[in-house]
Amino acid sequence: MRKVTVPLGQRSYPILVGGSLLDALGRHTRAAGLAGRCAIIADANVAPRFGHIVAASLQAAGFAPMMVTVPPGEKSKNLRVVAHCYDQLARHRLERKSFIVALGGGVTGDLAGFVAATYLRGIAFVQVPTTLLAQVDSSVGGKVGVNLDAGKNLVGAFHQPRLVLCDLDVLGTLPDREYRAGLAEIIKYGIIYDEPLFRRLEKNLDRFLARDPKIVGPVVARCCEIKADVVGQDETESGLRAILNFGHTLGHAIEAITAYGTFLHGEAISVGQVAAAMLSARLRGFAPAEVDRVRELFRRAGLPVALKFSAAQRKRLLEAMRLDKKVSGGEIKFVLADRIGAAVWGQHVPDTDVHAVLDALAANA
Amino acid sequence: MRKVTVPLGQRSYPILVGGSLLDALGRHTRAAGLAGRCAIIADANVAPRFGHIVAASLQAAGFAPMMVTVPPGEKSKNLRVVAHCYDQLARHRLERKSFIVALGGGVTGDLAGFVAATYLRGIAFVQVPTTLLAQVDSSVGGKVGVNLDAGKNLVGAFHQPRLVLCDLDVLGTLPDREYRAGLAEIIKYGIIYDEPLFRRLEKNLDRFLARDPKIVGPVVARCCEIKADVVGQDETESGLRAILNFGHTLGHAIEAITAYGTFLHGEAISVGQVAAAMLSARLRGFAPAEVDRVRELFRRAGLPVALKFSAAQRKRLLEAMRLDKKVSGGEIKFVLADRIGAAVWGQHVPDTDVHAVLDALAANA
Repeated sequence: MRKVTVPLGQRSYPILVGGSLLDALGRHTRAAGLAGRCAIIADANVAPRFGHIVAASLQAAGFAPMMVTVPPGEKSKNLRVVAHCYDQLARHRLERKSFIVALGGGVTGDLAGFVAATYLRGIAFVQVPTTLLAQVDSSVGGKVGVNLDAGKNLVGAFHQPRLVLCDLDVLGTLPDREYRAGLAEIIKYGIIYDEPLFRRLEKNLDRFLARDPKIVGPVVARCCEIKADVVGQDETESGLRAILNFGHTLGHAIEAITAYGTFLHGEAISVGQVAAAMLSARLRGFAPAEVDRVRELFRRAGLPVALKFSAAQRKRLLEAMRLDKKVSGGEIKFVLADRIGAAVWGQHVPDTDVHAVLDALAANA
Repeated sequence: MRKVTVPLGQRSYPILVGGSLLDALGRHTRAAGLAGRCAIIADANVAPRFGHIVAASLQAAGFAPMMVTVPPGEKSKNLRVVAHCYDQLARHRLERKSFIVALGGGVTGDLAGFVAATYLRGIAFVQVPTTLLAQVDSSVGGKVGVNLDAGKNLVGAFHQPRLVLCDLDVLGTLPDREYRAGLAEIIKYGIIYDEPLFRRLEKNLDRFLARDPKIVGPVVARCCEIKADVVGQDETESGLRAILNFGHTLGHAIEAITAYGTFLHGEAISVGQVAAAMLSARLRGFAPAEVDRVRELFRRAGLPVALKFSAAQRKRLLEAMRLDKKVSGGEIKFVLADRIGAAVWGQHVPDTDVHAVLDALAANA
């Protein structure tokens, strides 16, 4: 088992990465100082698969868990489902010292984390991510929230978990498409922060896709380390943390205009990162050969690297980007890269460059 | 104009108390470091009365305000109205550096504050309380939130405003019933923290009810000072801050079982405080003569001091109290007083004492 700490003073917390961890959840939760009643929030796919293991482990450690099941998928990350969760917690008398276990992928973690951030003005929560994407990204760092019709993650809070537990065994049952989607965030860490990680992925992609634990374990832990490092420096995204959004401005917009669900998040940001690399080449001297390396790695991972939009879709895409949380003074701010391993944030990108890159994405599609 | 500071380090903020302040809102908001777009959230009663003054003052100071109108009353402090506000903010492209002006009573402040706490994971907000109750209590201290069917304020956050502006002139148009309801929180400060304030109210109640600015101004400022002092010591209610809930455990339960709206909050906590004084006499040696002083001051203020419940209502009342946010280990925790001016929190009260006091309240009704 590997342990990474997110360094946030009194609110620091451990990320545990390893095999057979679901069984040990109760013990680690107790070690994190939690006690009493809790609610496990999981979607209708994950609950029957892992709910009983998690509940049993919590019970064995002296907790009194209850189960809250929510509908699966990005479409259910909304305020109606949040309200359903609140009602369940109230019915089961959760108290200020109770806590929530978010068991599932990024959607469940964001949703359950937002419920924890706001129920009784905030109660503790534990992240038990069951997808590759959630393990390396969304479960770490305390960003929680839900979507509005107007855009993704427009409502939310910063609320750090007390523990993140990444059981590598659960990745074994993940559908291939979801596993590959998780790779999009992993490749991102290489591009924005860690050139050696990028090279390691280029070299070992096949083993990673074959889910070889000898490569998956250290890579997941390394991604958590990078995220912990960035979040520790800039918890509420006043600066540096924005680099984690590389590829996300376009990615979120693609998700928004396709009504959430056509593309998995990882797929949308794969296209978004290829676009961001092309914009970086136009505006930051990112080498064209590096754009090719980026595109090639996503392609080998089985992720989309091109996309064609109708004129109407393109208009809606630009509108959605203008609703992005990173907009300031009406201007969309992009994360770009100077080279693989070094990102810059808060970059102004003229509309003409956005259109040129959308043209290029369409030409390759 | 009086100025009180809520001492919270980098998040400290001023409370301004005085006449003709609505006109000066723009200037003070700018001095608080805010800029750009903003949304004024007000209910359908307050918006036509003060909305244009506030909007004009903000415009004159260079801000670009838009108006979001919500239905009036405690019943509208819910997640559906919150969702309506989010949609308006998204439509008008509010950004992370935009802010919200909460213009109205406690309901509007709590609701608009929760919207500010969660929109784009939290944006700045300014409180412009227009009721006596909101000026002395709910606008200060950063507790924001909405009700669930299961109970009051069960969903929320701690999110401090950047400025609180109490214009005493707006109190002139407040309906008598609402003005008196505000007095319930003012009397509370005397009971829990400031015996001289309690005596001053006993002596000058008629002038206060006549809305004599020479007494209202200093009393409002003194209440803000007490609240600032308490919040500065214990922002997130891990201890001391709980004393501000004197009378609220029963008060909130009364509001909950009467479907919000039968009683104003101030009326419900008036009964609640009389009950808390009686419990204090049973359990903490609070002098019976002091119970009489407390009851008499609420009575003179025109507030309810007795109430009869049917057996079914009483059952629901106790259930509602068990859903109170202050419940710990299944046990309701009360705030009691040792004497006028000195409160204690986290007190266990046996059910038999609760029933005895409910009997006494009914006997007086």
